[in-house]
Amino acid sequence: MDGADYGVLAPAWAGTAAAALASDASFVQAMLDAEAGWVQVQADADLCSVQDAQAVREVASVDRYDLALLASRTPDGANALIPLLGMMRDLLKHDGAAATAGTALHRGATSQDIIDTALMLVLSKTLTLTLADLRSTAGGLSALAQAHRGTVCIARSLTQHALPTTLGWKAASWLSAVLDAEHQLDAAARQLRLQWGGAVGTLASLEQLLSGQPETTATSQSLSSDLAALLGLEDPGTPWHTNRMPILQLGSALGAAIAALGTLGADVLTASRPEIGELSEPREAGKGGSSAMPQKQNPVRSVLLRNAAFSAPGLLSTLFTAAGTAVDERPDGGWHAEWSALRELARLAAGAAQHGAFLANGLSVNHQAIERNLALGGDAVLSERVATVLAPLVVGGKPAIQALVRRSLDEGISLRDLLRLEISVHDLGDQHLYELFDPAGYLGAADRFTETVLADYSARKESWQSRN
Amino acid sequence: MDGADYGVLAPAWAGTAAAALASDASFVQAMLDAEAGWVQVQADADLCSVQDAQAVREVASVDRYDLALLASRTPDGANALIPLLGMMRDLLKHDGAAATAGTALHRGATSQDIIDTALMLVLSKTLTLTLADLRSTAGGLSALAQAHRGTVCIARSLTQHALPTTLGWKAASWLSAVLDAEHQLDAAARQLRLQWGGAVGTLASLEQLLSGQPETTATSQSLSSDLAALLGLEDPGTPWHTNRMPILQLGSALGAAIAALGTLGADVLTASRPEIGELSEPREAGKGGSSAMPQKQNPVRSVLLRNAAFSAPGLLSTLFTAAGTAVDERPDGGWHAEWSALRELARLAAGAAQHGAFLANGLSVNHQAIERNLALGGDAVLSERVATVLAPLVVGGKPAIQALVRRSLDEGISLRDLLRLEISVHDLGDQHLYELFDPAGYLGAADRFTETVLADYSARKESWQSRN
Amino acid sequence: MDGADYGVLAPAWAGTAAAALASDASFVQAMLDAEAGWVQVQADADLCSVQDAQAVREVASVDRYDLALLASRTPDGANALIPLLGMMRDLLKHDGAAATAGTALHRGATSQDIIDTALMLVLSKTLTLTLADLRSTAGGLSALAQAHRGTVCIARSLTQHALPTTLGWKAASWLSAVLDAEHQLDAAARQLRLQWGGAVGTLASLEQLLSGQPETTATSQSLSSDLAALLGLEDPGTPWHTNRMPILQLGSALGAAIAALGTLGADVLTASRPEIGELSEPREAGKGGSSAMPQKQNPVRSVLLRNAAFSAPGLLSTLFTAAGTAVDERPDGGWHAEWSALRELARLAAGAAQHGAFLANGLSVNHQAIERNLALGGDAVLSERVATVLAPLVVGGKPAIQALVRRSLDEGISLRDLLRLEISVHDLGDQHLYELFDPAGYLGAADRFTETVLADYSARKESWQSRN
Amino acid sequence: MDGADYGVLAPAWAGTAAAALASDASFVQAMLDAEAGWVQVQADADLCSVQDAQAVREVASVDRYDLALLASRTPDGANALIPLLGMMRDLLKHDGAAATAGTALHRGATSQDIIDTALMLVLSKTLTLTLADLRSTAGGLSALAQAHRGTVCIARSLTQHALPTTLGWKAASWLSAVLDAEHQLDAAARQLRLQWGGAVGTLASLEQLLSGQPETTATSQSLSSDLAALLGLEDPGTPWHTNRMPILQLGSALGAAIAALGTLGADVLTASRPEIGELSEPREAGKGGSSAMPQKQNPVRSVLLRNAAFSAPGLLSTLFTAAGTAVDERPDGGWHAEWSALRELARLAAGAAQHGAFLANGLSVNHQAIERNLALGGDAVLSERVATVLAPLVVGGKPAIQALVRRSLDEGISLRDLLRLEISVHDLGDQHLYELFDPAGYLGAADRFTETVLADYSARKESWQSRN
Repeated sequence: MDGADYGVLAPAWAGTAAAALASDASFVQAMLDAEAGWVQVQADADLCSVQDAQAVREVASVDRYDLALLASRTPDGANALIPLLGMMRDLLKHDGAAATAGTALHRGATSQDIIDTALMLVLSKTLTLTLADLRSTAGGLSALAQAHRGTVCIARSLTQHALPTTLGWKAASWLSAVLDAEHQLDAAARQLRLQWGGAVGTLASLEQLLSGQPETTATSQSLSSDLAALLGLEDPGTPWHTNRMPILQLGSALGAAIAALGTLGADVLTASRPEIGELSEPREAGKGGSSAMPQKQNPVRSVLLRNAAFSAPGLLSTLFTAAGTAVDERPDGGWHAEWSALRELARLAAGAAQHGAFLANGLSVNHQAIERNLALGGDAVLSERVATVLAPLVVGGKPAIQALVRRSLDEGISLRDLLRLEISVHDLGDQHLYELFDPAGYLGAADRFTETVLADYSARKESWQSRN
Repeated sequence: MDGADYGVLAPAWAGTAAAALASDASFVQAMLDAEAGWVQVQADADLCSVQDAQAVREVASVDRYDLALLASRTPDGANALIPLLGMMRDLLKHDGAAATAGTALHRGATSQDIIDTALMLVLSKTLTLTLADLRSTAGGLSALAQAHRGTVCIARSLTQHALPTTLGWKAASWLSAVLDAEHQLDAAARQLRLQWGGAVGTLASLEQLLSGQPETTATSQSLSSDLAALLGLEDPGTPWHTNRMPILQLGSALGAAIAALGTLGADVLTASRPEIGELSEPREAGKGGSSAMPQKQNPVRSVLLRNAAFSAPGLLSTLFTAAGTAVDERPDGGWHAEWSALRELARLAAGAAQHGAFLANGLSVNHQAIERNLALGGDAVLSERVATVLAPLVVGGKPAIQALVRRSLDEGISLRDLLRLEISVHDLGDQHLYELFDPAGYLGAADRFTETVLADYSARKESWQSRN
Repeated sequence: MDGADYGVLAPAWAGTAAAALASDASFVQAMLDAEAGWVQVQADADLCSVQDAQAVREVASVDRYDLALLASRTPDGANALIPLLGMMRDLLKHDGAAATAGTALHRGATSQDIIDTALMLVLSKTLTLTLADLRSTAGGLSALAQAHRGTVCIARSLTQHALPTTLGWKAASWLSAVLDAEHQLDAAARQLRLQWGGAVGTLASLEQLLSGQPETTATSQSLSSDLAALLGLEDPGTPWHTNRMPILQLGSALGAAIAALGTLGADVLTASRPEIGELSEPREAGKGGSSAMPQKQNPVRSVLLRNAAFSAPGLLSTLFTAAGTAVDERPDGGWHAEWSALRELARLAAGAAQHGAFLANGLSVNHQAIERNLALGGDAVLSERVATVLAPLVVGGKPAIQALVRRSLDEGISLRDLLRLEISVHDLGDQHLYELFDPAGYLGAADRFTETVLADYSARKESWQSRN
Repeated sequence: MDGADYGVLAPAWAGTAAAALASDASFVQAMLDAEAGWVQVQADADLCSVQDAQAVREVASVDRYDLALLASRTPDGANALIPLLGMMRDLLKHDGAAATAGTALHRGATSQDIIDTALMLVLSKTLTLTLADLRSTAGGLSALAQAHRGTVCIARSLTQHALPTTLGWKAASWLSAVLDAEHQLDAAARQLRLQWGGAVGTLASLEQLLSGQPETTATSQSLSSDLAALLGLEDPGTPWHTNRMPILQLGSALGAAIAALGTLGADVLTASRPEIGELSEPREAGKGGSSAMPQKQNPVRSVLLRNAAFSAPGLLSTLFTAAGTAVDERPDGGWHAEWSALRELARLAAGAAQHGAFLANGLSVNHQAIERNLALGGDAVLSERVATVLAPLVVGGKPAIQALVRRSLDEGISLRDLLRLEISVHDLGDQHLYELFDPAGYLGAADRFTETVLADYSARKESWQSRN
């Protein structure tokens, strides 16, 4: 039976652009790119011939490898690079490459150099996509926040109706989380770094080679820098075989992005419950249908965001366990546990960002439902305000008003009417009493907060644009 | 680029028998089996024709489906069954099947019925394998325990040398954990259960159908039982759409198996360090080699066990989070997060068990290293015994002896010689003093414990055999 | 500043009966009980005097110890038993106890024996409580299920309205999870086992002692059994210093209990949203109030269940990581990580069970809301049924009906009216058509499932009672 | 029984300075500080009297509260602030404070404002300590790295001997992780932010109050800023009730610090195994002793670092789960799960940093053991070098040399001697051959890397000093 996975059990990223970018094939290609890049750097430094580099480049195409076979050999050395190298050498022979090509291949490197570097290359592509989708999500949310600065709705805490707020500020709050996450992920993406240390992180073999080439001006330092530049990665100046902080930084940023999108999904799931109905995912042809019930339209994008939010924390904990137990000059199992956890986090983040961008740019707002829900609790929703403002005018002060609130709730009588009986028109005119119960008049700093987040968004957006 | 995964980043299970058994293809086949089984059950109850069942059986072969395409459609409804059903119907048409076959297909079922049931089918195959390998592991460890009941070695706590023990008891301790885990996993495997509830766990559609067939003797209960029997699963009597305890039971058992193997791997990793060298993995052609250093033989099996032990806990936490937040009649994202976590746990357990079985049946014991390490701490290793036995004979009692221990360590003088000076030969003859320092005489109940575990193993083994 | 914790940051268990049962003081008392029990066992076997046992018993009261001081000494040896022993010896001296009491104290034992055993004693008390509350929860849910077997309500999947079900079956589904969890936890509670192995799990020191007492009939085996019996624990026959399967079994069962309660809490949180309003927590004096809004009544019990459901999975993952990396004859850090994780899981489970029992026995059902929500989707909620039953009567079959469903939803026209136009009265009378749209007629096996779970409950309840 | 915890089960932080800083009492004091600060800010803005502020300040001392009682009331509203407010009001009455003090107390605030802010205050103190200890750790490691730049030792990968490296570079690698973690934690500490939003994050009540005070120049914005300044926190400009990114940032930084220290502990645990013996923890009076074996000295500091490294990942996963499921204007259980997880992470990090600092500044280096281990593998440790350098001089090239390596290992013959037989003295003189086998000549860029990290440390240290 076909032993491959296609994402059938991973709906949060299956079918998204990230699926292919972070696949095994993509990772193997990245290992090949790292190996080919290294021979290229050697050729550029006259440490091998241009023909050698060309020969290696020709075997550095994932299409030439049987990935199922490669996978089956992976446990032999506990990583895929060892059998891949063997296959590369076989292909070099098959292609009739010079023996010197084989000599230059992987020269002075160790599996961890190639695997860590390849993971960074895979992440680089995936993060580019994820960041673009996070920015699109932010764009959608900022438009939503802007458009609904004046849309008064009920705010809820611990699931219960509390006070009025605006949909604009709700959207701005989602936006603020997405911006924080984008910022963190962007910083992590800019620090994706080459791993280059040789067998034990000393580059001893490479330095040995260079010491035998007195005519070369290349140093282990310059060659590492060249390789980093060629691959589009940062040169950290030292290897980081057992300093796994870079992995934690990436994992944390991916986890934060997923969480920021998860909270958006959680709110949309609540808001799209039929009884609430304030928001709904856009109906798309072929999406969200049920296998049994024709009338049903499921909020699948939000379900997938929640799926990702539930899947990420455990994977992240694996990265921290691995990092905190790294030993010697190469960890004895923790390093191996990082690979699929980190790749899966990257895929989940990318998938979630794609779904989030779609959601943020297509959410339907149901004003009628918003108004209905706002009115649901009647006057009580403004009881905090009323209690504060009218306490001086009612005998018994705040506690007396709170008793009225409870009576209003218990007996279904309007709180305003109850208060009217307690306060003389002289002290408070009808109009003023009426206004006190207008939710739109009790929004506090909601709009200022919305504006603050929108300003953050604008500034951040400019920084994205200025970079391009 | 090829979007599939082959296990290149999952060395703990890549290349093992479980890789294919738990692949996406295997899961899709299990969904097809569940759908085909259900039509067969209907045919057996005269609810559809034998030809319908045959027609569905013919489209129920994973080879007829493009899994990459299927995966790409998975996010549309947040699961793979919905697009798979569409594809099945297309194939039925393509095959010229009667419309009634399409009617019988998936009749009264819901995606969750098929997906949960298919996961149980995948687990069934994987667990059979895992249990066999755990039993083989147990067999290897029991032989090791038996063979080394008399092999005295140093016991360590908090990494430091403590007292003597036997390698037999060490092996029996690993065995006891493996037996516990096997027992738990075996119980879980026997309770793999059908999920069958229809759209919301009421089988309303099925009952509706039956109510229109007054001549049938079939009931929703009998049909569910028949389906469970056909698929080789338990019939739990009710659906369990949002009661996810069965998933937790499975996940916990898989996690326990991985942990039991992890602790074996952890001990082998320590024992195969060159400075310790008491145990080593068997040298196998093509395994454990280094890409850079010809002399190096890596304990890859143990590294992979540790990899699994680090990867499992986070995945397990995902299952518990999902179970504890299940809502309504189908969870809104938690259910979706279970799939890949549970499948991955199953694969890790199966992979680990295969590696563990190999390890347990092939460990090399280095007696020379064991003796060298036992002697490393000199007399001090028996200071607990000496302090207890000789306290009455030394002025100052136990504290005085402990001072001698420290002096012995600090000055490198034999504790026995120091004690000889303190105790008259009259009170304690040389021979007796010599015997007090013989590690083989201070093994306590190590052998009784070994025997107890070996007896457990024998009893358990008999129960396996009696079942076959 | 006071360095103690009281539960101020742990609302899920603060203020519950478990808070004190699992406190540090309770754990220290359990260590003292284990030490005193061991001296008692020695006295019973004439290995020390009755006076020694009495002397140790007198220092074995937690009130005599300064726990803050004890805690501050805990890191010195990485556990609390070492300093506690020192304090016990000081108190023995202070009490004027014979030196032989000090000799008998902790004789042949190791810290891990006492700490693991003490944790089991703490768990024993906590589990008794938790099981009682889980049974009370089950009782409440069974009454709810029984009372509402005929209460038709809407079933939801992926947050959306799907088909009708009964509140009875919903309650029975919660009940089934609670029963599963109770069963698992009960099994774990019955296997709480003594840890007794001495320094390295060989009982060497104890056997040495016995070998010097030729007149005694006691063996290391009989003494271990006696101690287990005295403490009310199982005697596992061997120590389990590095076989941590028992800890995983306990942790998994605690996690399952928390998850089973979490899903109840999750559903109550949803159902008590004002817009849904089908269920509400009982209003209790002083509970659920808001610090700012007098009208607000928060579903605090359910919030606390969710709190526990979110807190448990990470703690459980710690136990699995620790178990899977245990090395040597005592783990080098993993063991230490287990203590607070296991204790906290026990406290969370006990607290959740107490809140769950309260909730299950006091939930208010709002029939009006249930009916309103059921009617919310109009006819569409029965579209699955209608499509199945009427397909043969409508030109175009099922797809044509599904088109009508969509038209009904889009245009707000009753599906029944649309169908009336399509189907002649001859084929289907008005009365029959009307009945087809009665939710109470489309409940499938809901009641059978409810009955099945209630029968399980009754059987299980009898087994509880027969044991008492 | 005393229901309090003292750290008896938490050896990783018990007895450290952080124990008291992050205790419940400390947290309650922080809540009191936040409440008192807020009244002070009101007084400064003439929104209440100086006497009111004084009256509140007088009740804002944790010593005046019964924390056990407070904890017992915590579940009533699912947080401790609600009962604390009640107790504060009682005390104000008891003190005879004016009613206006009670009015100003908590005016416009919500529980989440106070609790989140108080957690930030607790973290502020704890992080200050942790950062100081991380810097001390870095200082110790930099001295170690500097001192041992020339100490050649064996490097290991996957537990096996690989090539030579220097102890200096090993220490520099630990240092690089600690510096990364310090940098991240320092950034997080500088962004500890006020939470201030009122019931639903709109400050509606506060704005209402201000609208009734036309003479005041204070705005909700200025008052928030003043409060942030008074409490020593950042003013984020908006509330972050359901944007939990700040919590994730903190948790990730704490987790990274623990992991960086964990990897140091893991290496020390390995290196202090008696058979390896390269490093040892300083012997301290009263620390590391065994309750049973006088000769034993346990590496307790490292055990505690490992304990922390195992405990942190699960707690961190809780924070990410909570953040990713935050709903409405206040999360319904996730927020509550954050508190103890975040506090415990802070305590673990602080405890680990204290132990790490001690370790890093007191590690003993055993040169004899280092040399012995380096020599253990004989010539083979340089086989990579030899194979590279001598391939052109041996018939059969690299493969032939690798065969010699295996023969050398199998037959115990010196590789150098075997090579001498293969290579003529003409091609390679004895002296040159001898030098090839000198480990000190095959250290590659180890020293450059060490220097790079030391330079980073110096730069970073300057930035710390310039800030003070």
